[in-house]
Amino acid sequence: MGLTLAQKIIKNHLVSGEMVVGQEIGLKIDQTLTQDATGTMAYLEFEAMGVPRVKTELSVAYIDHNTLQSGFENADDHRFIQSEAKKHGIYFSRPGNGICHQVHLERFGIPGKTLIGSDSHTPTGGGIGMLAMGAGGLDVAVAMGGGPYYITMPKIVYIELTGKLPDWVSAKDVILEVLRLLSVKGGVGKIIEYGGEGVKTLSVPERATITNMGAELGATTSIFPSDEITKSFLEAQGRGKDWVELQPDPDAHYDEVLHIDLSSLKPLAACPHSPDAVKSVEEIGPIKIDQVCIGSCTNSSYRDMMRVASILKGKTVAPNVSLTISPGSKQVFHMLAKNGALADIIDAGARVLECACGPCIGMGQSPNSGGISLRTFNRNFLGRSGTADAQIYLVSPETAAASAIAGVLTDPRTLGHEEPISMPEKFDIDDNMIEPPAPPEEADSVEILRGPNIKDFPKTSPLPENIKAKALLKVGDNITTDHIMPAGSKILPFRSNIPYMSQFCFSVCDKSFPERCKQHGTGIIIGGSNYGQGSSREHAALVPLYLGIKAVIVKSFARIHCANLANAGILPLVFVNESDYDAVDQMDELELPDIRKAIAEKRRIFVNNLTKGTKFEVKAMLSDRQREIVLAGGLLDYTREHSGK
Amino acid sequence: MGLTLAQKIIKNHLVSGEMVVGQEIGLKIDQTLTQDATGTMAYLEFEAMGVPRVKTELSVAYIDHNTLQSGFENADDHRFIQSEAKKHGIYFSRPGNGICHQVHLERFGIPGKTLIGSDSHTPTGGGIGMLAMGAGGLDVAVAMGGGPYYITMPKIVYIELTGKLPDWVSAKDVILEVLRLLSVKGGVGKIIEYGGEGVKTLSVPERATITNMGAELGATTSIFPSDEITKSFLEAQGRGKDWVELQPDPDAHYDEVLHIDLSSLKPLAACPHSPDAVKSVEEIGPIKIDQVCIGSCTNSSYRDMMRVASILKGKTVAPNVSLTISPGSKQVFHMLAKNGALADIIDAGARVLECACGPCIGMGQSPNSGGISLRTFNRNFLGRSGTADAQIYLVSPETAAASAIAGVLTDPRTLGHEEPISMPEKFDIDDNMIEPPAPPEEADSVEILRGPNIKDFPKTSPLPENIKAKALLKVGDNITTDHIMPAGSKILPFRSNIPYMSQFCFSVCDKSFPERCKQHGTGIIIGGSNYGQGSSREHAALVPLYLGIKAVIVKSFARIHCANLANAGILPLVFVNESDYDAVDQMDELELPDIRKAIAEKRRIFVNNLTKGTKFEVKAMLSDRQREIVLAGGLLDYTREHSGK
Repeated sequence: MGLTLAQKIIKNHLVSGEMVVGQEIGLKIDQTLTQDATGTMAYLEFEAMGVPRVKTELSVAYIDHNTLQSGFENADDHRFIQSEAKKHGIYFSRPGNGICHQVHLERFGIPGKTLIGSDSHTPTGGGIGMLAMGAGGLDVAVAMGGGPYYITMPKIVYIELTGKLPDWVSAKDVILEVLRLLSVKGGVGKIIEYGGEGVKTLSVPERATITNMGAELGATTSIFPSDEITKSFLEAQGRGKDWVELQPDPDAHYDEVLHIDLSSLKPLAACPHSPDAVKSVEEIGPIKIDQVCIGSCTNSSYRDMMRVASILKGKTVAPNVSLTISPGSKQVFHMLAKNGALADIIDAGARVLECACGPCIGMGQSPNSGGISLRTFNRNFLGRSGTADAQIYLVSPETAAASAIAGVLTDPRTLGHEEPISMPEKFDIDDNMIEPPAPPEEADSVEILRGPNIKDFPKTSPLPENIKAKALLKVGDNITTDHIMPAGSKILPFRSNIPYMSQFCFSVCDKSFPERCKQHGTGIIIGGSNYGQGSSREHAALVPLYLGIKAVIVKSFARIHCANLANAGILPLVFVNESDYDAVDQMDELELPDIRKAIAEKRRIFVNNLTKGTKFEVKAMLSDRQREIVLAGGLLDYTREHSGK
Repeated sequence: MGLTLAQKIIKNHLVSGEMVVGQEIGLKIDQTLTQDATGTMAYLEFEAMGVPRVKTELSVAYIDHNTLQSGFENADDHRFIQSEAKKHGIYFSRPGNGICHQVHLERFGIPGKTLIGSDSHTPTGGGIGMLAMGAGGLDVAVAMGGGPYYITMPKIVYIELTGKLPDWVSAKDVILEVLRLLSVKGGVGKIIEYGGEGVKTLSVPERATITNMGAELGATTSIFPSDEITKSFLEAQGRGKDWVELQPDPDAHYDEVLHIDLSSLKPLAACPHSPDAVKSVEEIGPIKIDQVCIGSCTNSSYRDMMRVASILKGKTVAPNVSLTISPGSKQVFHMLAKNGALADIIDAGARVLECACGPCIGMGQSPNSGGISLRTFNRNFLGRSGTADAQIYLVSPETAAASAIAGVLTDPRTLGHEEPISMPEKFDIDDNMIEPPAPPEEADSVEILRGPNIKDFPKTSPLPENIKAKALLKVGDNITTDHIMPAGSKILPFRSNIPYMSQFCFSVCDKSFPERCKQHGTGIIIGGSNYGQGSSREHAALVPLYLGIKAVIVKSFARIHCANLANAGILPLVFVNESDYDAVDQMDELELPDIRKAIAEKRRIFVNNLTKGTKFEVKAMLSDRQREIVLAGGLLDYTREHSGK
C-alpha cells in the first residue's frame, strides 16, 4: 500500500517503533529551532546533557519573542543564547532578523526534512513539505544532542482542496474554515495533509499560513506537498538546490478525508476566545473596533504585507482604530522599504513595530479595557493580549486592513476589484543578521554569557512509591498553556527564572493557586478535555513541577503538553470514565497507592478519593519510554542515567 | 537699551510683573502641548477647572511616550486624551504620528510665539525662535484655560557661535560642549540665547537638537534667532506664512557671554550617569559596547536619520551590538521609507522601533545587565534605561552609527570623507494622523472615555498652622525627577493612578520610603543642590503630596520641580546656610512653628530640629502668587477659589 506525504518522511526518519497508529515512534531529527522565550531553558537543558556540539544537520536559535526588553532580563537571555549558539554549533538569528518560522521558511527549511522547534507554530515548515513539529525545550535539547524525537504515530487526515480562492479571501480563511470544521481538538493525534488541485493555486506563504495555524487544531503537524510552486519559492530564495519533489503515493491510505472547495469560502473570523469559534465576517456584522494588529508567524509574509499595503494605500486608519504592523522578517521588511509599500503603510497611519512576534505573544500593544481587537494572529485565548477583558477576533490580513480603514469589522469583498499580488522572482537575500557558529576548534574559547536572572532547572526527584496529595486545582475544558503559565510582557522576561514565574501559575483562573501549592508542598491538578492546548512552552510543566505538582488528571491532553509533563516527571493521567471528573472537588485528598509499581509494571491505576470515600480509575498517558522517564524523575534525569552522567 | 531675543518675546507676552531678573513674571501663552505620560493628569486638572474650551491659539495633545502598551492602561489613556482633546478644542496627534517636539517643530511651531508643554524638552521649539518651556501639567492646564504662565525673570546667557562644525561633528556635540562648560546646574534661572555667524551654518533640526538638550542645563529655555534658514524650513513644511524674522537688538544686554568656535569641536560623549559628565570620544577610547539606540526628541530628525543611514549603508551592525532606530515623526519615517534610506538601515541589521520616544524614556530596550549603551538621547540618569547597573553614554548620531558598526565606541572622524546631508526643499506633508477638535457646537456631544486606571487627583488641604514631621528621607545633590518618581515601562502606564505609583516613589534611592510615609502619615524630605532636575513630571510632586510630604528642604531646586511642588501645595524650602544640611539626619523630628503665618506674612522661617535640639533657618522659594497657592493647598484649589468654583 502506498504512503502519504507524512508517512514517507516518517519512514525515512524512523529510528524506533512501528508506523502503527497509536504506537510511539522515534524519529531522527534533521533540523531544530528555538526562540528566545523557550530557548534559554532549552540551552540550559542542552548544557546539562554535556554534549559539546549539536548533532543535527542544522540548528538555529532565533530571537523574536522577548524583544520589548523592559528590564535587563531579555537582553541577558539574548546574549546567553548567542553565546550558547556560537559554542555549540548553532546558527544565531539576531534580534531584528525576524520571526523564527518566517525566517526558517525563507532561509533554512528543506522539503522532506524533519524539524522540531521549541515553539508550537513550528508546523509552518509544512508549507514547503517539511515534517515540522512543535516540541518542549527538553525534547529539542535531546534532538540537538542527536537523540530521537518521540511521537505517537498519528492518524493521517487528508484535506482535498479544489477550486480557487475568490477575490479577497485568503489562506487565513482556509485554516479558519478547517478550525470551524474540526475544532481545536479535532487534530489531536493526527497529521493534516493537504492535497488536490486547489493546492496549485496557493503560494508557499499561503500554504505556510495554513500549516502554521494548524497548530490550533491540536494536530501533530500539517503538511503540503513539495511541487513546482515550492521549487519557485526556493529558487527565488536562492536555494533551488534544496528543492526535492514530494508527493503522496497515488494509493496512499488516509484515516480521514475532508474536502474544501476554495471557491466557496468567505472571509471568516475566529471570535473570542477560541480559534475555532469561527463565523463569517458577514455574519458577525460591522461591529466597531478599537485596534487592528497585522503580523505574527501566521500572516507576516511578503505576500500578506503587500496585500495590506495595497489596501491601505492613499487611505487613513479610522480615528477610533490603532493599527499596528509587524513585518515577519528582515527580508520582508527590507523589500517593503525598498519598493515603496512601507511608505504607503506609514502614510496611512499604521504604527510600524519591530520585525518580531510583538503583540501576538502579548508583547505590548494590549488593547484598551474591554477593547475589540482584530488580529491576523493565531490565538485569541482569554487574556493573551494583556488586557483581561479585551475581545480578540482572528482574521485575514485582507479583513484586518479593510476594517482598519473603515473603523468597523469589514468584509474585504466590499473593496471592489482585487489586484493579484505576484511573488517576487528573486527575494532580496542578505543573511548578515544570521551568525554562524564558531568552528569546532574555536568552540572551547567561546565564553557563555550568563545573566543574573538565569536560574537553574527546578529540582526533580524519582517517582515515589505512593502519592497522597490534595487536588489543589480543578479546572474545566480547553485549558491552554496560557492559562497554566501566562505569557505577556510582564512574565515572558522571566522564562529562565522558574521560581519567579511560579507566582503567576494559573493566575488567569485562580490567583491563589501558587500560594496553596506552597502551603501544601505537593498537589494534583484536575482538568477537563484538551488540557494544555496552545503553545509548546515546557514552562507549563516546569512551573507545576517547581510548585510540587505530582500528577495531572484530566479528560484528555493536548499532545505537546502531555509530553512536557512526562518530561518534567509529572504523571499525565486521564479518567477512564470521564464522568468521574464530576465526582472530584477541588481540595479533595487523593491517594495513588503503589503508583511507582503501577507505572513500572503497567498495572491499572486506581485513585482513592479519601475526602469522598470513593475510588476511580485513571490511565497513564505514557509510552514505555515515558514510563521510564517519569520513574527517573523526568527526561533530564533519564538522559543523564542513560548516558552515564 | 536694546532687547535680547527672549526679552522681546517676553515683552510681547508680559501680563504681570516686571522684566527684572529674579522677579516673578506672568506670560500669556500662545500654544501648549502635552504628551501622554503627563497628559492624562493634565487633562484631569483641566477638567477640574471647568473651562469648556481651550483659550490658547493652539493646543496639541501628543501620544508618544506610553506606546508599548503592556496592559490596558496606556490604550485607555490614549482614548481618554483623544476624547478630551476632541471635546475641549485641542488637536490630537495619534500614536504613530511621532514625538511631540519633532512633530510640533514640523507642523505647528511659530517663531516669536510662546509655548509651554508638559514635557521638559519643550525648549526644542527654541530651534525656530519660539519661547518654549517645559512646565508641570497643572501649569499647562491653567495656560489652556487662558491663565498666564509664571516664571522667574531669567538672566540671559548669550552663546556666540563662530566658525563651522568640522566633518562628523554635529549639533549634539555643540550641546554636549555647552553642558561640559556650564554643567547641569549652569542654566538654572537663565535663558540661553544662541547667536553669531556660526548660527547660519546650522539647519533648523540642528538648532532644535541644541535647544532641546538645553533642558539638561536646568535652563528656563534656549532659543535661536529666526532667520532665512528658519524661513526655508517653514517653507519646506508648507508653512512659509508662519515665518517672522526674529533677531536680538544689536545693543541688547546679556548677563553672561560665552563663545564657542564650532570649528574647534570634536565628537563628545556624556559619560554615566550625568549629561554633563562630558569627555571627548577620543579620550574615552574604544570601549566595547553592547547596545546603540538612535532616536528621541534630541536626534530623530530627517537630517539625523539620513546621516545614520549613510553611515550604515552596506555595512552590518557588529555582532556584539543591538542597534535600535526610532524615527522622530511619521513625516521623517515616511520620507526614509520612500527614498531608500530606511531600506539601508534595515539592511544593516538595525531594529526599527515605532516612531515614538521609545527607549529614551525607558520604554523598552533596556540593556543587558552591566551593559554599555550609546544613545543619541538627552539623559543618562542612573536606572532610567530600565537596567540598574547599565552604563549609558550620550552621543551624536554620527558617533552612535559609527560605533554600532565597529562594536566599540568610535570617533566618526575615522570614517573618511563626509557627504553633506541636504535638507529637502519640500518635506512630505500629510497631517492625516492629526485629528482636529470637534467644532464648538458639537463639543457637548463628545463623550469622555475614561478607563478604570484613571484615578482622581490626590487629596489636598490648606497649609496648616504648624508642621511637625520627621525627615523621612535625606538625599544628596542632583536628585532627578527620575529618582523621585521613576519612569520606565513598568511605572509609566500608571501616570493617572497616583496611589499605585506611590509604591515606587524614590525606589531608586530607598525602597522603604513609601512604607515609612504610610507609617508616619506626614513627612519632610531633605535634599542637596539642584534637587528635582530632569523631566517636568508633576508626578514627582503629586506622589509626595499623596504620601503626606509637607515640605522639601534642600540646598537648591531645579526650576520646574520647584514650581510643581508649590502647585501641589508642598513647601519648597532652601537652607539659608547650606552647611545646615549636614546637621539634619534622616528620621530627625522637625518642627516648623507658625508656618502658615510665616508664609502668609513673608516672615523668616526657622526649623526646630527636635531630635538634635538645634534650629536652622530656611527660605521659601515662593513668589507672592505661589505663597497664596501653597496657603490654599495647591494650584488647583487656588484656581478654584479664584474662579469661584
